[in-house]
Amino acid sequence: MIERIGIVGGGQLGRMLTEAALPLGFDVTVLDANENCPAAQVGAHQLRGEITDGAAITELACQSDVTTWEIEHIDTRALEVLALKGQNIQPEPTTLAMIKDKYNQHLFLEDRGIPVARSVSLGRGLERGEIASDVNLTNASALFGGQLIIKSRYGGYDGRGNLKYNGESAEELEDILGRDLYAEQIVDFSKELAVIAVRDTAGRAAIFPTVETVHEDNICHTVTMPADIDPRLDAAAQEVAHETLRHLGGAGVFAIEMFALDDSVFVNEIAPRVHNSGHLTIEANETSQFEQHIRAITGMPLGSTTMRAPAAVMVNILGTRDEPLSRAGLEKVLALPDTHPHFYGKDPRPARKIGHITVLGADREEALATARQAREALAV
Amino acid sequence: MIERIGIVGGGQLGRMLTEAALPLGFDVTVLDANENCPAAQVGAHQLRGEITDGAAITELACQSDVTTWEIEHIDTRALEVLALKGQNIQPEPTTLAMIKDKYNQHLFLEDRGIPVARSVSLGRGLERGEIASDVNLTNASALFGGQLIIKSRYGGYDGRGNLKYNGESAEELEDILGRDLYAEQIVDFSKELAVIAVRDTAGRAAIFPTVETVHEDNICHTVTMPADIDPRLDAAAQEVAHETLRHLGGAGVFAIEMFALDDSVFVNEIAPRVHNSGHLTIEANETSQFEQHIRAITGMPLGSTTMRAPAAVMVNILGTRDEPLSRAGLEKVLALPDTHPHFYGKDPRPARKIGHITVLGADREEALATARQAREALAV
Repeated sequence: MIERIGIVGGGQLGRMLTEAALPLGFDVTVLDANENCPAAQVGAHQLRGEITDGAAITELACQSDVTTWEIEHIDTRALEVLALKGQNIQPEPTTLAMIKDKYNQHLFLEDRGIPVARSVSLGRGLERGEIASDVNLTNASALFGGQLIIKSRYGGYDGRGNLKYNGESAEELEDILGRDLYAEQIVDFSKELAVIAVRDTAGRAAIFPTVETVHEDNICHTVTMPADIDPRLDAAAQEVAHETLRHLGGAGVFAIEMFALDDSVFVNEIAPRVHNSGHLTIEANETSQFEQHIRAITGMPLGSTTMRAPAAVMVNILGTRDEPLSRAGLEKVLALPDTHPHFYGKDPRPARKIGHITVLGADREEALATARQAREALAV
Repeated sequence: MIERIGIVGGGQLGRMLTEAALPLGFDVTVLDANENCPAAQVGAHQLRGEITDGAAITELACQSDVTTWEIEHIDTRALEVLALKGQNIQPEPTTLAMIKDKYNQHLFLEDRGIPVARSVSLGRGLERGEIASDVNLTNASALFGGQLIIKSRYGGYDGRGNLKYNGESAEELEDILGRDLYAEQIVDFSKELAVIAVRDTAGRAAIFPTVETVHEDNICHTVTMPADIDPRLDAAAQEVAHETLRHLGGAGVFAIEMFALDDSVFVNEIAPRVHNSGHLTIEANETSQFEQHIRAITGMPLGSTTMRAPAAVMVNILGTRDEPLSRAGLEKVLALPDTHPHFYGKDPRPARKIGHITVLGADREEALATARQAREALAV
């Protein structure tokens, strides 16, 4: 039986994975460069090191019965080599490598008939001044009717490395200069959805109810379960999640982010890990995404994803300035019905995710109103 | 705002208090003599020291904004002095001292009109051989119609220090020799019940639904919520819990254990702390007993005690031998519906509580059957 779980990364996702793993009797070690990282604060052992350091990842894997990750921007090659040598790495590192290159991910899904937005590679040539004259970009713009977004193939996170292109210039060009880029047609979506899908080592799948996500400044702001969508659209989202999961290798949680049109969905991108859109599952579902991931990678059967209440809403707590956490107003938050704050043990910085609040309620409107009250009451 | 919580004792109760406190952003330190105690394994800081050592308790309290405990067999005097000096100790140490002496607790409740079994002090004189001739005991036996139990005033736990007296001799006399004793009339109860009651610093109370507890060999074996009792009996149990709480000082959780007769209840004893009969609240209620205690002692408002499912059952996992934890059969446990194991990070020893399993279900019978299956599937 698996005893020791290694996690590459010990931020809030590693922390909530640890909170799920310890009561089940597993031992957790995280690889993280920051002293007393969020996961270490809740009982994970910590190996100090960079998540991009193959040697450190190898050390972690060699002292673990199974190794996983909380973030995709890590040394994938090291994990692929470890898997080839027979180490238990979950999910499959080749799937991680495929997903990490977002343009490649796009082509992979397109090849398998999963609906995605159209995209074109831009190569690495794009430099300031060339933006209006780049041939690939000009062609892509013509192809996509001028509606396109320039994206970094690697390393994008919370919308960083993405740039909306207006046909002439782009203001935040510094962010993408010298990077591998691709252009993606802008889908005129009505909503953003996400589905958390998980598969165990026996190949059995569990799919969580579809959530609606609302982003502000490219950062996930509000998540609502179930999504307020037509049942046929919901069925389409669930079907696309099922079908997408079928093509992803290994055991564990995958978060499938989608754009919803009137009666169909496009996959926006996949996160091969537990995801912000699933934090509300801690309270909202019989088994949380974190416990599902732990069950999956340790060879255990998955749990039920049935909801514990008719509706759930999650709002992120973002830092506003570089000051120690205050938690002022927490007494107002805890006075609200079925309201559950989670702080991550991180020092606030502007726009940094330092916690979240989940609210369960009798319906979406009620839960959403309570979540807004909670977020407004809290001054971090 | 309170930041640092000190807990005297870092066993499984301190562990589950820590698991509730950290997501709310509190910092926890436990006082415990055992290296890497269960609470330290999930992120509590640990002060190494005996829970009966007043100096260690004082050190803990002086580095904490509020100090509480997970066990009553601690240096109560030190806590009383600290409270007099203005340290924030919750609940009130005088209440702890009153409860710790079980005979005194009995008299205290009797004086305030709370129904309790009749009892008589036996003093400390009872020695082997004197058992049949002890005057107090003979009188008590006559008074109670020969139906009595000899109990230690101090230090009893999981039935240790209790002795059923058959009028002539008692086999396990060693257990109580030289201790302060009292005799209690045996109540011919039909069921054992418990109610978790909690009060915050503003004096507001929250009462959990009544549970039925089943003991085997004096150790809590199964807990069912809600108790399968007549609504009038339930109302009586809730009323007695309310009334009892009114007489207990300070903020925090109190577990009120009761004997149920046909249409009335007797208080058996009070635990001035979170309690085994409330472990199932982690999954079964909107707010767990552990979070309620943390909210209460930190000056926060209490949460709702509403159930998340129609029925919940908890079974303890007891060690059977002195061997490392095996968890064999965990995959069968996790395959059961809405079943949630909690291991405490303790090495198994015979009859030692090393974990528990909570099952939620559509009704008591279903949850109970699943819980039994779960317990049987697991070989620790």
